[in-house]
Amino acid sequence: MADSTVVPAAIIHRDPQFKYSFPATEHIYNSIESSDPLYPLHRQTARVLIVIGPSTLRSQHLDQYPSVELVVGTSAGVDHIDLAECRRRNIRVTSAGSAFSEDGADYAIGLLMDVLRRLTAADRFVRAGFWPIKGVYPLGNKLGGKRVGIVGLGNIGTLVAKRLEPFGCTIAYNSRNKKPQVPYAFYPTVLDLAANSDSLIVCCALSDKTRHIINRDVLTTLGKKGVIVNIGRGALVDEKELVKFLVEGELGGAGLDVFENEPGVPKELFTLDNVVLSPHRAILTPEAFANVREVVIGNITAFFLNKSLLSEINLCD
Amino acid sequence: MADSTVVPAAIIHRDPQFKYSFPATEHIYNSIESSDPLYPLHRQTARVLIVIGPSTLRSQHLDQYPSVELVVGTSAGVDHIDLAECRRRNIRVTSAGSAFSEDGADYAIGLLMDVLRRLTAADRFVRAGFWPIKGVYPLGNKLGGKRVGIVGLGNIGTLVAKRLEPFGCTIAYNSRNKKPQVPYAFYPTVLDLAANSDSLIVCCALSDKTRHIINRDVLTTLGKKGVIVNIGRGALVDEKELVKFLVEGELGGAGLDVFENEPGVPKELFTLDNVVLSPHRAILTPEAFANVREVVIGNITAFFLNKSLLSEINLCD
Repeated sequence: MADSTVVPAAIIHRDPQFKYSFPATEHIYNSIESSDPLYPLHRQTARVLIVIGPSTLRSQHLDQYPSVELVVGTSAGVDHIDLAECRRRNIRVTSAGSAFSEDGADYAIGLLMDVLRRLTAADRFVRAGFWPIKGVYPLGNKLGGKRVGIVGLGNIGTLVAKRLEPFGCTIAYNSRNKKPQVPYAFYPTVLDLAANSDSLIVCCALSDKTRHIINRDVLTTLGKKGVIVNIGRGALVDEKELVKFLVEGELGGAGLDVFENEPGVPKELFTLDNVVLSPHRAILTPEAFANVREVVIGNITAFFLNKSLLSEINLCD
Repeated sequence: MADSTVVPAAIIHRDPQFKYSFPATEHIYNSIESSDPLYPLHRQTARVLIVIGPSTLRSQHLDQYPSVELVVGTSAGVDHIDLAECRRRNIRVTSAGSAFSEDGADYAIGLLMDVLRRLTAADRFVRAGFWPIKGVYPLGNKLGGKRVGIVGLGNIGTLVAKRLEPFGCTIAYNSRNKKPQVPYAFYPTVLDLAANSDSLIVCCALSDKTRHIINRDVLTTLGKKGVIVNIGRGALVDEKELVKFLVEGELGGAGLDVFENEPGVPKELFTLDNVVLSPHRAILTPEAFANVREVVIGNITAFFLNKSLLSEINLCD
């Protein structure tokens, strides 16, 4: 419980289902949770709001925090925050910055390797006791020599590319603009990228412009041996189409950490050996939590000291 | 069926259970299989014997091929071939050389990532329908910043190290001798390496000297958070001890492609979420089979042309 004589530095906004996704917030200054009896009081005066994980923050939520000047996000993406509304209210917004980038990139490599080399399918095969009985097991494919297309060459995408280099992959990317210092081939559209890739790794931000950026045309172009890895947001992929392609054998495989209606996962995928399913946890490690805690504290400190914020979102985009 | 007027370039030695592990050998020159009616005849005169996968080749088998001068292995390791007996009979031996090295190294990274980040466990969690019900899922650990010890810095071990670099791991190794050109820390014993590592990747050859090189002492030293990845041979690890350590929670986890009594896998491991089990397939991709086919053909051609063999095993070791 907060001390009523102390004004908390920040209050917490959190959907109940994200109780697990950002532990130890109670140790960030004296920020308080909604369970605190003084929460209704401080909600009126708090200048800083910490948004836990992908908790939704729309206009009606912002109405409950009338004094807020800064929304401190704890995730890399901020698609759950109504940025236009924040801009209208002169509220600044920060994200987790690159705190999760390395773990996200690691997981993308793990998912790609898993789908290509059939690791989780192999584990299932052994645990089912099939090895001594069936013996024969379908081969996977080598990662080396594959053309890997990265959709969104931001913090995570860049780290994905670096990790892929020693595996001998040919790397290309699509992003809003060609990056001058980058040695990889740039394709101005995802469709062009798909036409020149064996696998696509989706790690761009979700916005109105990127929703369903992986659509029917992209999947058709990627083709029967193509692999999709999604560590961004579920809605970047047209999930209905993806499921259809996978079920009908029109796509080679998929490694999915995110889904359109989490925690809902299309049941048609549960019986497929060429997909790897993960409960939105690409970036969840204790090490990443420690990183994001530093970023959150850094942003709040900078705010109260009138210094530059560490990971401010440009709301004019 | 072989043409009885043509002397085959080589005959095939193959345990029945390895029917799957090296397809398309029938296209290597006019080598013949035991199913061929002329096999008993050519067995007497063939100068080259192709050994498929890890098919056992001991003295009693060699007795069946009295004219053999060259044993062409199709696997990276040759522990299934009685090298002393070959030496005694003046038979030369070749392995698959580095044909499988990249795939082996890739798989080692995949297994390590899988154990640390709990990928196959996550997939099992989702497929069981637990995500919407349980929500909370135990965190894995970040690969970056971990100290990874490589046991055996040969072809595969070197490629493992190169792949680990961009993940931000600290790499060290143990091998028979310190390698002068290598930037990683060398430890003269596996015990020393374990004392300075968070994870061990076992990728050395199996011999009398390396049997059970991962023993109780090494596991104790690696400790409760330690991870073992084995893509070498099952007998490199004292499997009984490994199982005991895993079951009792005295080791952090294991990614195992090989086992002491394949295709037997200790059933105690089937219920553990911190192990990934794979049916000896680290190097099995169509691309690797194409590579090894080239090596086999190259060795046989060189033999008949009296040129240097591509991947001859030094039998004087």
